[in-house]
Amino acid sequence: GYGRFGVDYQEDRGFNDAGDELSDAKIETRLRMNIDASTSTDQGVDFGGRVRLQYNDGDSETNVSAAYLYVSANGLTVSVGNVNTAFDSAGLIYESEVGLISRSYGNAQGDFYAFDSDAYDNNNRMGVAVEYEIAGASIMASYIDPDQTTDGQSEEFSIKADYTWNNIALSAAYVQNAAGTEDADKYFIGAYYTMAGTNNGIGLNYIDEDSDADNQGQTIVLYGDYEVAPMTTLSAYIANNDRDSNETDNAFGIGAKYDLGGAYLAGSIERGYDENVRADMGVRFDF
Amino acid sequence: GYGRFGVDYQEDRGFNDAGDELSDAKIETRLRMNIDASTSTDQGVDFGGRVRLQYNDGDSETNVSAAYLYVSANGLTVSVGNVNTAFDSAGLIYESEVGLISRSYGNAQGDFYAFDSDAYDNNNRMGVAVEYEIAGASIMASYIDPDQTTDGQSEEFSIKADYTWNNIALSAAYVQNAAGTEDADKYFIGAYYTMAGTNNGIGLNYIDEDSDADNQGQTIVLYGDYEVAPMTTLSAYIANNDRDSNETDNAFGIGAKYDLGGAYLAGSIERGYDENVRADMGVRFDF
Amino acid sequence: GYGRFGVDYQEDRGFNDAGDELSDAKIETRLRMNIDASTSTDQGVDFGGRVRLQYNDGDSETNVSAAYLYVSANGLTVSVGNVNTAFDSAGLIYESEVGLISRSYGNAQGDFYAFDSDAYDNNNRMGVAVEYEIAGASIMASYIDPDQTTDGQSEEFSIKADYTWNNIALSAAYVQNAAGTEDADKYFIGAYYTMAGTNNGIGLNYIDEDSDADNQGQTIVLYGDYEVAPMTTLSAYIANNDRDSNETDNAFGIGAKYDLGGAYLAGSIERGYDENVRADMGVRFDF
Repeated sequence: GYGRFGVDYQEDRGFNDAGDELSDAKIETRLRMNIDASTSTDQGVDFGGRVRLQYNDGDSETNVSAAYLYVSANGLTVSVGNVNTAFDSAGLIYESEVGLISRSYGNAQGDFYAFDSDAYDNNNRMGVAVEYEIAGASIMASYIDPDQTTDGQSEEFSIKADYTWNNIALSAAYVQNAAGTEDADKYFIGAYYTMAGTNNGIGLNYIDEDSDADNQGQTIVLYGDYEVAPMTTLSAYIANNDRDSNETDNAFGIGAKYDLGGAYLAGSIERGYDENVRADMGVRFDF
Repeated sequence: GYGRFGVDYQEDRGFNDAGDELSDAKIETRLRMNIDASTSTDQGVDFGGRVRLQYNDGDSETNVSAAYLYVSANGLTVSVGNVNTAFDSAGLIYESEVGLISRSYGNAQGDFYAFDSDAYDNNNRMGVAVEYEIAGASIMASYIDPDQTTDGQSEEFSIKADYTWNNIALSAAYVQNAAGTEDADKYFIGAYYTMAGTNNGIGLNYIDEDSDADNQGQTIVLYGDYEVAPMTTLSAYIANNDRDSNETDNAFGIGAKYDLGGAYLAGSIERGYDENVRADMGVRFDF
Repeated sequence: GYGRFGVDYQEDRGFNDAGDELSDAKIETRLRMNIDASTSTDQGVDFGGRVRLQYNDGDSETNVSAAYLYVSANGLTVSVGNVNTAFDSAGLIYESEVGLISRSYGNAQGDFYAFDSDAYDNNNRMGVAVEYEIAGASIMASYIDPDQTTDGQSEEFSIKADYTWNNIALSAAYVQNAAGTEDADKYFIGAYYTMAGTNNGIGLNYIDEDSDADNQGQTIVLYGDYEVAPMTTLSAYIANNDRDSNETDNAFGIGAKYDLGGAYLAGSIERGYDENVRADMGVRFDF
């Protein structure tokens, strides 16, 4: 798991349900603890399960997520329950993110299922995922039924493939009926090139969420990372999304990270499709 | 704790509150993690406590149970809080169960208190249990007050005794005001015979839940286990219950387990007093 | 964490919401487990977080508290989230407590914020605390915003200082807008003297909660601890509070503890400002 805390600034954050104006700046905290249990059979098959404890600022209590269970052997993993989904697991889909809170306007704009750290909206949600990993490549498929006790809902199905070849990483994914919304189909393809002998690189992502059921447009994001000094990395992106409701179709962000060895300081400034600025700064540690 | 997942089939599962027909087949998952804490005094007295994290399919979140605390010395254990009850702890009372989900129509048909893995229905429930173990024998008594803050409810009281002598295990239990229902008294007696030098055996259980407060009739179940091949055990039972509301008074089940060493595959088919069939198949692992 | 269980007696405990008379005696249980995660950077800076699992009798489930996160180096600790507060952390403020449940009528009578083991009343509560420790001394300041998303509430601010010099411990604290109530300001000062070469001692605490916003009066408590035999300590206090609503301004308590090595037996009898008696007896163990 990990912990992080810092300041989160959002220009024109808006109003709460009572009509009070929300503060533009607030303290952001997250503590995530994954509770894993596993065992191995004499034949070398691994069985296990995971529950996540997560607290975010604004919660009244720490959430104890729904669980998933898995069986794994020879690179093939089958998981059942509150599973990671294929679309959410695409290797590069979040790679343009910057800052402490790991956000990017180059991410997908609409919804799709993922491991749910909070309580399910629908108790009877059930997922199944299959992943196969072999040297340099990973393919995965997932299926989420919003309510497995009855028929009639649209079930989400997604697939992804990741491949690394020398200095190039490729990633693609597709999701059907994203988040259980009928005909909300989405496509993702991305590539990242690491400059030989460095940690510097450049990437390009394309996400299509332009279905009538979703209307989130197409997003293209060009991004890069550059180690300006030992332990210090600058990252930046410029994103374009053609959704009708945008104030502007261009968004961008820049972030910096300073490695403390076991923890890092990070900060970012971004400007979104609503022409507002958001920024964060703080510290994150992994354990 | 343990994890398990598989398929659960129930003929004519019925309808949900919204009137939708429920699927006969569903994916069944459970992840159970017991969180134990304990310490020992210099005199060799053990103190401890337990909380259980459990997720079942159909839950929106993992439940974090109410806790019990205990003190233990020289074979005598006193526990307080969300305790295991004597009737529920009788050594053979669940012994006719088959399959992944460990079910049997030969089990008690009505309610009684046990350790509650979910949230209490009544916040102010309080239990006390006393158990004494000595070579081959165990006796236990428990007391559950549905609401300890006020008088007037019926309190559940139960006792049990287990005894093993050579190849024979004997078990008996009695509960008064089961699950806090006045005059819902229940009786259990069971025996199991293991064939010398094998894991094969045969058992007979009798449960009387025929009080006017309960009206669940009397249940007799004859059951057995047979190792048909190394690692592979077949189990079966035939049960008779004379409750008025039954479609049939006879139920039966057959199950199989294949040991993977640290995990096992299990499946079962049963036919109940409602003349419907239920079945399960899947994998369970302990950690 | 720790566990404890025993009997809690309260003369004239009163009535529940349904109008039923509450039992004077009840079984008291608590199981507290702190779940800590931490890491250290190469520079020797510690980062960590804490979530608390706690079950008290009367709860339907074990509570999983909101979390706090911290960074610590060279005696300076900054924490964010569900933090310990300065006023609640004053070294001697709870020192007159007796018995299993650790209670005293010499404690503060009104409210102020502390680490919240239960769910927040207000989801958007946010706290920050800073503590500095150096040989024999500790100073701390904390700030709690009842709702950090909007302006307009009163924020609690508190400070405390502790100092130990030879056989004398001194402690002082101040809180402004205690528990987010405007102008509910409180003052605390206390001292404890340990007799050289013994565990016996005597202390005096003064707490002023006499603001118009609070009206809990001023409390003075004189208390002492005396080891009457090896492993056995008697403690007693006499407290005076001048709140208008008191039946009597004088309260007192006496308690005993017997150390089992890793656990202890404890009991107490107290008489409060309402002229009623409360008592407890039981066992507590730490792990």
